Amino acid sequence: MEISDLDNPSLAQRLQHKLDQKTKPLGSLGRLEALALRLGLIQGSESPALEQPQLVVFAGDHGLAARGVSAYPSDVTWQMVENFLAGGAAVSVLARQHAIALTVVDCGVARDFAPREGLLVRKIAPGTADSFTGPAMSAAQCEQAIANGRAIVEQLPGNALLLGEMGIGNTSAAALLLARLTGHGVADCVGAGTGLDPAGVARKREVLRQVLALHAQATAPLDALAALGGFEIATMVGAVLQAAAQRRVIVVDGFISSSAVLVAQRLEPHVTQRCVFSHRSNEAGHALMLRHLGTSAQEGAQPLLDLGLRLGEGSGAALAWPLLVSACAVMREMASFESAGVSGPAA
Amino acid sequence: MEISDLDNPSLAQRLQHKLDQKTKPLGSLGRLEALALRLGLIQGSESPALEQPQLVVFAGDHGLAARGVSAYPSDVTWQMVENFLAGGAAVSVLARQHAIALTVVDCGVARDFAPREGLLVRKIAPGTADSFTGPAMSAAQCEQAIANGRAIVEQLPGNALLLGEMGIGNTSAAALLLARLTGHGVADCVGAGTGLDPAGVARKREVLRQVLALHAQATAPLDALAALGGFEIATMVGAVLQAAAQRRVIVVDGFISSSAVLVAQRLEPHVTQRCVFSHRSNEAGHALMLRHLGTSAQEGAQPLLDLGLRLGEGSGAALAWPLLVSACAVMREMASFESAGVSGPAA
Repeated sequence: MEISDLDNPSLAQRLQHKLDQKTKPLGSLGRLEALALRLGLIQGSESPALEQPQLVVFAGDHGLAARGVSAYPSDVTWQMVENFLAGGAAVSVLARQHAIALTVVDCGVARDFAPREGLLVRKIAPGTADSFTGPAMSAAQCEQAIANGRAIVEQLPGNALLLGEMGIGNTSAAALLLARLTGHGVADCVGAGTGLDPAGVARKREVLRQVLALHAQATAPLDALAALGGFEIATMVGAVLQAAAQRRVIVVDGFISSSAVLVAQRLEPHVTQRCVFSHRSNEAGHALMLRHLGTSAQEGAQPLLDLGLRLGEGSGAALAWPLLVSACAVMREMASFESAGVSGPAA
Repeated sequence: MEISDLDNPSLAQRLQHKLDQKTKPLGSLGRLEALALRLGLIQGSESPALEQPQLVVFAGDHGLAARGVSAYPSDVTWQMVENFLAGGAAVSVLARQHAIALTVVDCGVARDFAPREGLLVRKIAPGTADSFTGPAMSAAQCEQAIANGRAIVEQLPGNALLLGEMGIGNTSAAALLLARLTGHGVADCVGAGTGLDPAGVARKREVLRQVLALHAQATAPLDALAALGGFEIATMVGAVLQAAAQRRVIVVDGFISSSAVLVAQRLEPHVTQRCVFSHRSNEAGHALMLRHLGTSAQEGAQPLLDLGLRLGEGSGAALAWPLLVSACAVMREMASFESAGVSGPAA
């Protein structure tokens, strides 16, 4: 896979110059300008445009859920897949609002689904194994999930991928990946997920500590992903790698989808150059994770929204989507000082 | 004018209950839920809906601009009005993106405009007087501007008003109103506006200090507005009062429009219950101003976006608009646990 370097100083300069000629005080659109610049660099264009955005919800179950690491039972995974397909979930509502195509992928849900418009079945197994007693998946399963993710994105139309996910227990998998790939202690990586009480969080923390100890040898990104991850996360890793290779704009959602980007970044450091981080989740650990996902070592990723969301599904990505559309519209449609006959700053 | 109290505990409870039954972990949509609650309370409905949103850009010139308090010459006010009407300004682009109707009001621009679709002429005078030497406007002019703002909103369709403004020099007027109505020192209220350098900010601060001293007697809200404000701000005050009385949703933009809300709040404390604060401006003083605009004495206003914007025009209000639409869509369209057959938290 080839990811061409986005460090294109000449294009960056031309984009900045174009922004600076727009009829507004210099820099006065703040981070919307940085976003416009990023979108221009991803697309290699001074006039970025977003087409046929695709929100993909990667769904899978987790053997570790049996250890009581979630406030909700595993059945909620398939129930919510039905809800996505019926149009009643938050992400269904938000995708509809913004005319974003929504696809749900069964990457490894415990229950099978009847074929449906908007559903792709790429099931590796009916849920991962329990990482408390062994690896969540085999290396071959992990490889297959990544290949699935690549193939799914390759066949999607458009030039933007919004990441979504569903899987009871997957904040545990994401926290494990964060801890293992960055070296932070479990306590800094674990949060309440869908709503554990403090005792539940303490129990979850202890379970995850033991899981990490069991898989102490799984330090390489793919080994960590197989030992600690989930089918939906591994499939998402493939999707991120493929989208980055195709110069699609990747709109990252919250804690889980960021963990997939983290793994993908460890495989291909430049993938984060294709990413727009939609929001800072309220899930403990996400702010820490974002610090590792910046395009340079110095600065972390700067998410667009900070609304205390902790839902996942791609809901934050969908909420932030119109800001990306705005950034392109500003770049393409705003007048320049010259074209509008507006005076610049007083000499 | 009558503003019925929005402290409707029974409706608030019903709205919260409805939110809590939606298929998502409790509270997991974060501040989008608080927004949905607010919109429901404003409309007195468990199913809030936004119709025919109206963004009004109030424009006016400032005699004080001659004192060098802005980085741009006063001519930019009328030039930007032309740009709004031609569709080339940031707010034009963003309003178009979101299908928000855009109206520009000449509240007191120094130059006259030919009649145009989308332009209302409610000119009090060709710019305010220089508040460095006397009141910016007479009490009668201030009263007329407020009446104009009321009448404009009364005739607008829809149930949401997005505030925008244009006027070279108007961060000075807003800073003066903030200082006078809250008692904060000028230094805490003054910022770089459209882009003054540090020496320019120091000069602006000194000018504003002298203006405040000259009008030491102008302490009542309307006296302060007349002495220190602008025609666009006074007209906006009337618009805010009228919109609040009609239970329209008022989407506040940045520093200038917040200053109009501050004056309106001092006249009718409950107007802020009708307000949604779209963003925290990068203009120094806005964060401080927001602290005074909460619906209770304890908490300040919580803006939705924090993107380092400092453009005005209503651009922040337009950028935040889709979040309001999302909040209504969640309330109206999301399935409940019961309707979708999704399990609640494990017992």
